Amino acid sequence: MNESHFLHGFLNPQSVAIYGANNKGNSLAGLQIMNLIKSSYDGNVYPIHLKLDSVMGFKAYKSITEVPEIPDLVVIVLPAKAVPQIFRECGIKGVKRIVLISGGFRELIGERKNTLTKEIKNIADEYGIRFIGPNCLGVYNNWYGPEEENKSFNIFIWENLKRSRFSIASQSGTLSCHIWYDPENLDLGLSRSLSVGNEANVDIVDCLEYYKDDKYTEIIGLYIEELKRGKKFLAIAKEITLKKPVIAIYVGGSKAGNRALQSHTGSLAGNSKIYEGVFKDTGIIKTDYVQEFLDIALIFSKGIIPKGKRLGIITNSGGPGAMVANNAENHGLIVPEFSESLQKELKNNLPPTASFKNPVDCTFDMDLPYFYITLPERLMKSGEIDAIIQYGVVGFQEVLDEYLKFDQIAKYAEFQHQPDEFVDKLAQKLLHPTMKNSKKYSVPIFYVNPMNFNSPWSKKLRKNGVILFKLWDRPVNALAKVCKYVEYKQKVLDKVL
Amino acid sequence: MNESHFLHGFLNPQSVAIYGANNKGNSLAGLQIMNLIKSSYDGNVYPIHLKLDSVMGFKAYKSITEVPEIPDLVVIVLPAKAVPQIFRECGIKGVKRIVLISGGFRELIGERKNTLTKEIKNIADEYGIRFIGPNCLGVYNNWYGPEEENKSFNIFIWENLKRSRFSIASQSGTLSCHIWYDPENLDLGLSRSLSVGNEANVDIVDCLEYYKDDKYTEIIGLYIEELKRGKKFLAIAKEITLKKPVIAIYVGGSKAGNRALQSHTGSLAGNSKIYEGVFKDTGIIKTDYVQEFLDIALIFSKGIIPKGKRLGIITNSGGPGAMVANNAENHGLIVPEFSESLQKELKNNLPPTASFKNPVDCTFDMDLPYFYITLPERLMKSGEIDAIIQYGVVGFQEVLDEYLKFDQIAKYAEFQHQPDEFVDKLAQKLLHPTMKNSKKYSVPIFYVNPMNFNSPWSKKLRKNGVILFKLWDRPVNALAKVCKYVEYKQKVLDKVL
Repeated sequence: MNESHFLHGFLNPQSVAIYGANNKGNSLAGLQIMNLIKSSYDGNVYPIHLKLDSVMGFKAYKSITEVPEIPDLVVIVLPAKAVPQIFRECGIKGVKRIVLISGGFRELIGERKNTLTKEIKNIADEYGIRFIGPNCLGVYNNWYGPEEENKSFNIFIWENLKRSRFSIASQSGTLSCHIWYDPENLDLGLSRSLSVGNEANVDIVDCLEYYKDDKYTEIIGLYIEELKRGKKFLAIAKEITLKKPVIAIYVGGSKAGNRALQSHTGSLAGNSKIYEGVFKDTGIIKTDYVQEFLDIALIFSKGIIPKGKRLGIITNSGGPGAMVANNAENHGLIVPEFSESLQKELKNNLPPTASFKNPVDCTFDMDLPYFYITLPERLMKSGEIDAIIQYGVVGFQEVLDEYLKFDQIAKYAEFQHQPDEFVDKLAQKLLHPTMKNSKKYSVPIFYVNPMNFNSPWSKKLRKNGVILFKLWDRPVNALAKVCKYVEYKQKVLDKVL
Repeated sequence: MNESHFLHGFLNPQSVAIYGANNKGNSLAGLQIMNLIKSSYDGNVYPIHLKLDSVMGFKAYKSITEVPEIPDLVVIVLPAKAVPQIFRECGIKGVKRIVLISGGFRELIGERKNTLTKEIKNIADEYGIRFIGPNCLGVYNNWYGPEEENKSFNIFIWENLKRSRFSIASQSGTLSCHIWYDPENLDLGLSRSLSVGNEANVDIVDCLEYYKDDKYTEIIGLYIEELKRGKKFLAIAKEITLKKPVIAIYVGGSKAGNRALQSHTGSLAGNSKIYEGVFKDTGIIKTDYVQEFLDIALIFSKGIIPKGKRLGIITNSGGPGAMVANNAENHGLIVPEFSESLQKELKNNLPPTASFKNPVDCTFDMDLPYFYITLPERLMKSGEIDAIIQYGVVGFQEVLDEYLKFDQIAKYAEFQHQPDEFVDKLAQKLLHPTMKNSKKYSVPIFYVNPMNFNSPWSKKLRKNGVILFKLWDRPVNALAKVCKYVEYKQKVLDKVL
């Protein structure tokens, strides 16, 4: 069980002391203590501040010595030069876990480079302290305490995220927590997130070891600038990817990228070819884009994994269908022409101007239950495809409502506004059978509605558990990478068995 | 002047007859007549319907013969088999312009393939009719009538789009009109859009000829499945791209893509290598993604074109800065290390843990006026970069407002809610100087705020004319393509001069 792993304590502290905590909105430590309040953290909170008597309503202490217990976790957000002394105090107190937010260690150039890091590492070793950072943003745990109590331990995410099984370990603070603002990304939800910063003590390999046996982690996202324990990484990644997909952003290889890294976490990155090789050998899904990182995780998060790389395309318009087909094939997916019997059957159920070979273009004259239920089911059942992208799931009622605002239209139109309950029931009726079939046949289906993600119909789709994209570009690329992973895994398992 | 071009009449009709118009919300012709009402079209509208006496309040006619004038434009949305007869009636009436929405011509396989098309082409020639389609969605003109009256002629876009100088010609109806739902894309606005469908009579080359001298067209977007007049296209594209950027989605080359095209507009596409060559030779910017198509157009729409491909990166976080730098270089942009004097100056104005070589990482401790005004100005002035991507323009006040909802925080926090007027003024104060400088130095600047596009601060940014992206992936790719175009143009002009 992973509760015995040392990182478990970082994510589940019963008490936290925060060096530097204050009442300001523009300070990191201020935000962190506010996040504890916002996420209804009910452990003990000990702000440590030289001058303040209380912070955000919590009694403050001049030093860790005065704190009435040994806090499970200490968070430090004070300038680098103060940190060795604080580490020593913490060690004497008996603290075993520190999150060191402060920057100004390895990323500094010049004399003190590394000496400060070495100093704190030595102190940590002396007192048996494990620490995350420096130059990080902290930790997040969306499964804090008993599952049914629905609590989180959160010092760094401003949004309320839904629980999921997607966990992050990141050498960038931003990539570990500030990629969630948009409702499109919020749908993915989060399990744990560990911002490891410069990795002076805890590194990504530790995180992987923890996530490997973590029941709340089924998909892992990594942001990597440099791997310090390459061999260990390789070994554990190979092991994990057979059970849990790992998606990685690797930044390095370019001159400018390396210069940025040098200033960022002080890492020198490496030869990007070596890294590419590591990802390929371990089945890690590599991407250069944070949106794709999230898209891939979203696809996995529904738990319906395609068995192969054959794509069925359903559309009500030729252009998007053709673009999806073209991009899919260019990215290594297969868009098979349907068998004659399937074509014949589809043809009989579609308007005369429709296409039925794959893509299936239902044209504008689509019959909703056929479009949403029967057709996808038929494709899933056929065994001829492994995943579906469906364009044209547009919120037509909201379009009509816009027209009804015009008197001339409202007076003569042979349609009317439908109350929300009607649309809600319609959505359920159209979507539930397909969500069920998707699971039954293990054929994921991705919907594309080009409307705003918060538009009424998009909200209905999302509420009913749909994987929704706004345009038809992204699902193709993300799916192609998912399928490559599936292929990798199958290949390795075939060898082993 | 382009008013003498025959397409001008299609976009500026004083009267329109619509075959098939009705009062239904789920019919194309119903939607089209409603769009005329929605866009306050004040020309004469003549629905043509065998049974109805009136449609949406307009007197209806049994046939074009009864219409009391020769309509400037006729729109047909009836089954293919009825079309030859309608063409003949229109010819006899004296109609010169038809938009043929109906599908079921060339895209049909079998006996009647092409014979029907040939038939209507012959009739059109006989009566001197020009027609758009078949299998299209029609036309859109956001500059209808006198400029100051702010009217549009619109039969196919559901949204109210702001006026811009971006015009589309597309072999896909969807790509010509149904890519605008999202506020992110609405910011781009639209000038004209021509959905040419199967191109039985009017083709993309005609559209380019029209757009070439159109004062309301400064950026051109194309969706291409097949070029019917390759040489003409090559010649006119070469001429246009020296004045107006042309962005093209080309769908073809893959097996699945070609099968989709065959069913869609009946085109056979071509050897994608030939097409790639055409785009390269003519300086057409090619993309496979509709979002990138819109992103590139958005960058051009502000009229501030980079002079070269050197990118300056401003960030308040290392990870996004490193990702931008890495992706930029991988896509052919240059992220130059700043000169020593510039580095020295920046260093003096930034916190000790900041980076200043490019990317400039201001860290979380950023001073807003420096971050928004002074720093970008300094980079623009330096002559060391041609464009800027700035991450971290986050709506901090709205984050703070979320915390203030918690009593424990509201009671102790040393910050408060700021009224909207305050934030509005702040936005103006921070953004106006930079917008001005961007123009002055001809250095475009792209902001990245990962929050929802309709979040309060994002709205302020957009209101002040900012080019805004939600994540840092897209602006890099779009800019790289813009810069390649700039390079192409410079090269050709250098040769000529």
